[in-house]
Formats: sequence, structure tokens, C-alpha cells
Amino acid sequence: MSEPHQGGSALVEALRACRAAAAGVAALDAARKRTLLEAMADAIEAAAPDILDANARDLAAADARGIGPALRDRLRLDPDRLHGIAAGVRGVAALPDPVGRTTRRETRPNGLVVERVRIPLGVVAMIYEARPNVTADAAALCLQAGNAVVLRGGSEAIHSNTAIAGALRRALRGEGVPEAAVNLLTDLRREAMVELLRQNELVDLAIPRGGEGLIRFVAEHARVPVIRHYKGVCHLYVDRAADLGLALDLLVDGKTSRPGVCNALETLLVHADVADAFLPRAAAALSARGVELRGDAATRARLPTVRPAAEEDYGAEFLDLVLAVRVVDDLDAAVAHIRRHGSDHTEVIATTDPDAASRFVAALRSAVVMVNASSRFSDGGELGLGAEIGISTTRLHAYGPMGAEALTIERFVVRGEGQVRHPASRGAG
Amino acid sequence: MSEPHQGGSALVEALRACRAAAAGVAALDAARKRTLLEAMADAIEAAAPDILDANARDLAAADARGIGPALRDRLRLDPDRLHGIAAGVRGVAALPDPVGRTTRRETRPNGLVVERVRIPLGVVAMIYEARPNVTADAAALCLQAGNAVVLRGGSEAIHSNTAIAGALRRALRGEGVPEAAVNLLTDLRREAMVELLRQNELVDLAIPRGGEGLIRFVAEHARVPVIRHYKGVCHLYVDRAADLGLALDLLVDGKTSRPGVCNALETLLVHADVADAFLPRAAAALSARGVELRGDAATRARLPTVRPAAEEDYGAEFLDLVLAVRVVDDLDAAVAHIRRHGSDHTEVIATTDPDAASRFVAALRSAVVMVNASSRFSDGGELGLGAEIGISTTRLHAYGPMGAEALTIERFVVRGEGQVRHPASRGAG
Repeated sequence: MSEPHQGGSALVEALRACRAAAAGVAALDAARKRTLLEAMADAIEAAAPDILDANARDLAAADARGIGPALRDRLRLDPDRLHGIAAGVRGVAALPDPVGRTTRRETRPNGLVVERVRIPLGVVAMIYEARPNVTADAAALCLQAGNAVVLRGGSEAIHSNTAIAGALRRALRGEGVPEAAVNLLTDLRREAMVELLRQNELVDLAIPRGGEGLIRFVAEHARVPVIRHYKGVCHLYVDRAADLGLALDLLVDGKTSRPGVCNALETLLVHADVADAFLPRAAAALSARGVELRGDAATRARLPTVRPAAEEDYGAEFLDLVLAVRVVDDLDAAVAHIRRHGSDHTEVIATTDPDAASRFVAALRSAVVMVNASSRFSDGGELGLGAEIGISTTRLHAYGPMGAEALTIERFVVRGEGQVRHPASRGAG
Repeated sequence: MSEPHQGGSALVEALRACRAAAAGVAALDAARKRTLLEAMADAIEAAAPDILDANARDLAAADARGIGPALRDRLRLDPDRLHGIAAGVRGVAALPDPVGRTTRRETRPNGLVVERVRIPLGVVAMIYEARPNVTADAAALCLQAGNAVVLRGGSEAIHSNTAIAGALRRALRGEGVPEAAVNLLTDLRREAMVELLRQNELVDLAIPRGGEGLIRFVAEHARVPVIRHYKGVCHLYVDRAADLGLALDLLVDGKTSRPGVCNALETLLVHADVADAFLPRAAAALSARGVELRGDAATRARLPTVRPAAEEDYGAEFLDLVLAVRVVDDLDAAVAHIRRHGSDHTEVIATTDPDAASRFVAALRSAVVMVNASSRFSDGGELGLGAEIGISTTRLHAYGPMGAEALTIERFVVRGEGQVRHPASRGAG
């Protein structure tokens, strides 16, 4: 649509190499890609000491700057997490190849055979912060979908990301695939990111994952298409007809099992009819786990020691052991609260009433709606996509967890026998 | 993501009304939507005298400004075309409702039932030029997909668009659906368009259709997600193994049946082995229909009266009776030419060799690839989508002709029985 920047900065040169590599990746068949991804997983495990050492340097630097606990948790690797990263890559390797799949076929009345066939997007730019696992997850998913990937991680994880990307590129080299197919950018200045975001001839999609500041910056400067991975303000609504023991399980799991991630719960909404029965149990279980509650007047009438919630606590992504609580009159009030304060990420209803569940699902336009299941399952791996490249809160192309298939696009392949649209074109010669 | 403009300009007020109407449209079931669309088609036909009169005023104003023949063809309505517009709306009414459809269902090992269910996008802004049929097509498709629509047409078609939108809104009113669900903007200043394009809290998707200037303007100013409908530089490659009579049919149909539209052919590529046999027949058939050829040296060696092609003729969207011609050494050279000069819209191969067809399809990343069929079939109606809202050349969300389904998005609905991610969350109370 517009010419790429001329003059060939280092970034543009890197992107051109990535674009050239993309054609090679697009041509790999399913077996070659599987072998490649297995080799990448092996390379990560083989490089575990280097990666953990690099991560220790990142953590030391972060600690020296006084990093918060949620961010530290996102940054930190350990042998288990590293094994999980490699296992995630193997999980992607085992998935069916999305490329070349014919998703629909129709014969038109005039005999044209119209197929929809999945092809790769091309070059995907991943822009992220803190979590070094994204380096491997994004590379695996992009390659599985036949794309090349440009990785622009955060400065706080630069050593970890470099070590992981180095392992991945060794695997590419070993499999005879151009290393430029996985390109970790090391110029982390904002100007370089702006230059990246304007290369709409060389980059097909940018996926920002991170804090509000990053997402806004990308949205402001992008000329390339963007799928936002915005904040997760996940709600649990405990319905009048809820199984309260089940609801308590979902609450504790959603809030405490990993508070620093986007599918953690941030707000609890409780139907007034069960507030007396549920709130004291919830408060006891959560305070035993160090969670601070912030409640409305109706909550504080039942739990007098709870701190009052400010208006901005509803809609806040705490990413920490803090929970906003509100008592609502009915399901419609819960829906209205979520519509007003939610982020379209993931909402949960606990109820034994199928009609209430259906109304909750239909009334909300969030990417993921759960009935009697923890918000923490809002994750590509848990929902069957293999690893995920993120959770889209953009209502376009992909909405919710994005796996390899979301990194492809359907195009039309039409086969005919000389059909023309205008009969007078026949016998032209 | 960001707050809508405060203060409530007339545009923002209109968009808020549209957003409110969107919730009502999203809740309509398939039968209500079918009735509504039938009523819209009836209303267009009932208003035919008014619409044609309004169109005559637009044409008179355009003629006074000295409009070109291709643009005039896009702007012009006649009883047949108006009947076609109403028939297109009825075609959409007859399509299966894309909303609420469960496209996939999987039970995970832990018992979670994961479904993908289509929901509307919300509010779609259609930004277009010249062709007044877009007013009806876009409204029908957006409503069929459960969306509200904001229509921002070109000033040259303002009377036609106002007459058509008036008919559509009468139908909405008659069916008890808020009129704000179809909103024709009449402030056509560029500043108003910029304001529209920045309302990412109120508009879910912008679809620009028109000339390069419009598309660039939208891309430059949009904060809302955009699917571009960029130019169609469609190629016909006549392979060595082509049936030359069939190829000639595709050529004449592609170039002359409606040269002012984006799926018309702009460039002919001929394999050197059949150039002697094909080019004289092509030149005779095309010049009989008033087509000017612009050729490379190898073409002019066979057709000495043909004017030399300038480099910029390859990649030009003439939208007129002009055709660029090049002789290529083989299929790979044809692919390389299209990759360099194409617009990713629609490409055609004429060949009887299945291997050549497969290689052509696989090597190109265009939205539509045709084998032995006219490029003029690259159209939502012809490819089975009912009417189309446009032909996307953005490799995201939808690629190629976009119908009602492309105006929805899949989200996740997950049903469980109290599953938690972290076992220690169990028995929390």
C-alpha cells in the first residue's frame, strides 16, 4: 500500500530478511514444521542452563530497580517453567497444521468450485513485555502457521529473550530454515518501535501484549494492522442459584492461583440473595490467602472490616492479591456492571440455573464467557489451541485466546472451465 | 480502550445512538432479521422513483463537474440496477443467520466443554465513494450479521444515498427496530471523518472502499480497526498449456464486461510459447471493443501498433478500457511479476495443466486465485456470500469478498462443573 522506508536502516534490512524467510516458512509442509518445532523444544531444553543464567541476570537487574511482585513473577523462569515452555512448543508441534486446510467447498450453480483455503499471514511482529516465555510461544505458533516472526520484547527480559531466541535460531539453522524467520530485535528504543509499526509493506500484523502504556503506544503509532491484547478485568458473578462451594472454588482459584496474569479475577459480584451466606465464607478463604477486599456498602454491611471500594477499583486490573467486591440485585445488574467496567476479556457465572447461564452468556460480548469454570482456564493451552500467542480483546480476526490458526487467513481458490460473467464475452475470437 | 470524545458533538451523539441500537439488532433472531431485510428490499423498490430522481440529480452535478466514464458508471443507477440492489438485499435475507452459530465444540480432558460461537462485531462504519448500491448492501449485511452500521458515502452520491437510506429507515421503523441502526452521515467534511475514525469506543470496525486517496486517509487517521478494500490490479496469466479460446473468453470478459470495477482485469501476462498464437487474437478481440493495449517489447514485436507500456502501467488500476500486456518466459516469471506489481486482490490462470494451476495457486498470496474462470467472479454474490460489503485486501479477519459472516467474530463459551486450574483452590471454604 505504501512503499517501505527507503535507505535500508538496520531494522528495514532485518524486516526484509524476515519477509524473504517468510516465503520459505510458508512453503514448509506439516512434517517439516513438526520436525522443526521439536528441534526448537529440544534446543530450549539443551540451553536451559544458559537461559536460567540469563534470566537470573534479568531478575537481578529488575530487583536492583525495585520490581513489584507481579512483574517479578512474570519475568521469572525456573526449571519447571522452562520445561513448560519446551512442552508448549511440543504441544504446538503436535497440533494439526492450519496451513493449506480447505475449510469450505461449494459448487456454484454455474459450475465454479469455490474453496476457502488457509494461508499464512506472512510476517507477524510480536511486541511484549516481561514474560520471556512469549519468545518461544510466539515463535512456535508463528512458524506452525507458516509465518516468520519479529520479536520485540521488553528490556527487562533482554538476556532471557536473547538466550531463548538463540536456542530457537540454532534449531532453525540445524533444520535448514533461514534464521531470519525468527528475528529478536535488540534496539529497544521507542523510535525503533515506531519505525517497526509503520512498515506496513513488510509486516502483516502486530500483536502487542503488555501494559496499558504499551498498547496505547502501539495503537497510536501503528500503520500495520494491530490485534490488541488489552487488560483482563475478569469478573465472577455468583448467582442466586449458585452452588456456593463451587463458587468459592472458582473464586479462590481465579484470584489466588496466579494473580499476576490477565485471566485472574479482579472483581466479584454477588447476588443479594446469597450475599449473607457467601461473603463471609469468601472473606475467610481469601484473607487466609492474603487477599485484600475492597467492597461496596452492601458488602461492608456484611463484612465491616472490608475497606470501601473506590469507583476506580471496579474496572481495575490489580494483577495482585486485591479483589473488588459488589453485591448486585440480580443477574441484569451483574451484566450491567460488567458491560460498564469490563474489558471484554473473560467473565464467569456460577449458577445451577441453565436459564441464568444462557442469559449471562447472551447478554455479554466478552471474548470468553465461562459457566461454572475458573477464569484461569481462559488460556489457549487450556482451551485446546496448544500454546497461545495471546488473548485478543480486539473484536476482529480473533477474539479471546489466539493459537496457530489465528495466525492464518482464509482465501478463495476458484476453479472453473472457462466461465465468464457476461455472456457476450463468449466466442470473442 | 480510550474514552470516547466527551462533550457530545453531533457525530458522537449519533454514534452513541447507533451503539445503543446495536444491542437491539444483536438481539434480533433470524426470523426477525429476515422479515426486516425483506421489508428493506420492498422499501427500496417502493421508493424507486425517488431514488432514481435523486440519482439523476447526482449525475447532473457530476456531469457538470466533468466526471470520467468509469466513475459515472459507478454512480449511475437505473431501474435494472435498482432492482438488482433490492434483489441483493433479498439474497442476504435468504442467507443463513451467522449469529449464534456454534462453529466448533470440544470437550477437554478435564471435562470443560469449549464452544466457539459467532457474535456480531457491534458498530461497523462503512466509508465509501461513488457507488450508491453500497448504502443498501452494507446496511443489509451489517444488519444480517447483527450489527448497526454508520454509512459515510461520497458527496457525489449524497442524494442517491439519502434516498436509499431513507427507504431503509422507513423499513426499520415499520419493523419496530431503532432507526439509528442505519445511520447515514451527512457531514462529509474530512474533519468529521477523522472524528469518526478516532471513536474506538463507539465504532468496532471501519471499512473504507474507494480510491487510493480515501484508503490512505483512513489508514493514516484511524484508531478504530480498519479492513482495507484497496485497489484491484487483477492479472490474467495465459499459460503455455492454456486453451486459447477459453483464455480469450476470460480476457474479454475480465477487461470489457465492466471496466470500472475492482475485479476487472488490468494486466495480461502471456507465456512466450503461446504469444504468437494468442496475442493477435487478443488484440483483435479487444480493439474491436475499444480497448487500448500497452505492451512490453516482446508484445510489440508481435503487435507493432501497440503502444509501449511504461513501468507504472504494470500495477496500475486503470478502471478503464486500457490493458497492460507482457510476455513472460514461464509460470515462475508470471508469479514474480504478480508478486511485484499485484495488489493481492484477484489473479487468474488459464491452463489445462493441473500442475501449473496448483503451482500458480500455491505461489501467490492473493485473496482470490481463479483457475480457468473470469476475474469478474471475484464478488461476494458470485462466490456464494449473498451481497458483499467489499473485497478485503487486508490479510486479517477477512481476505477477499466479505459477506455477512465476515461481520461477525467467534468467541469462546465454556461450560464446566466447578473445574479449577490449581487443585489447592478446592475445598477453599
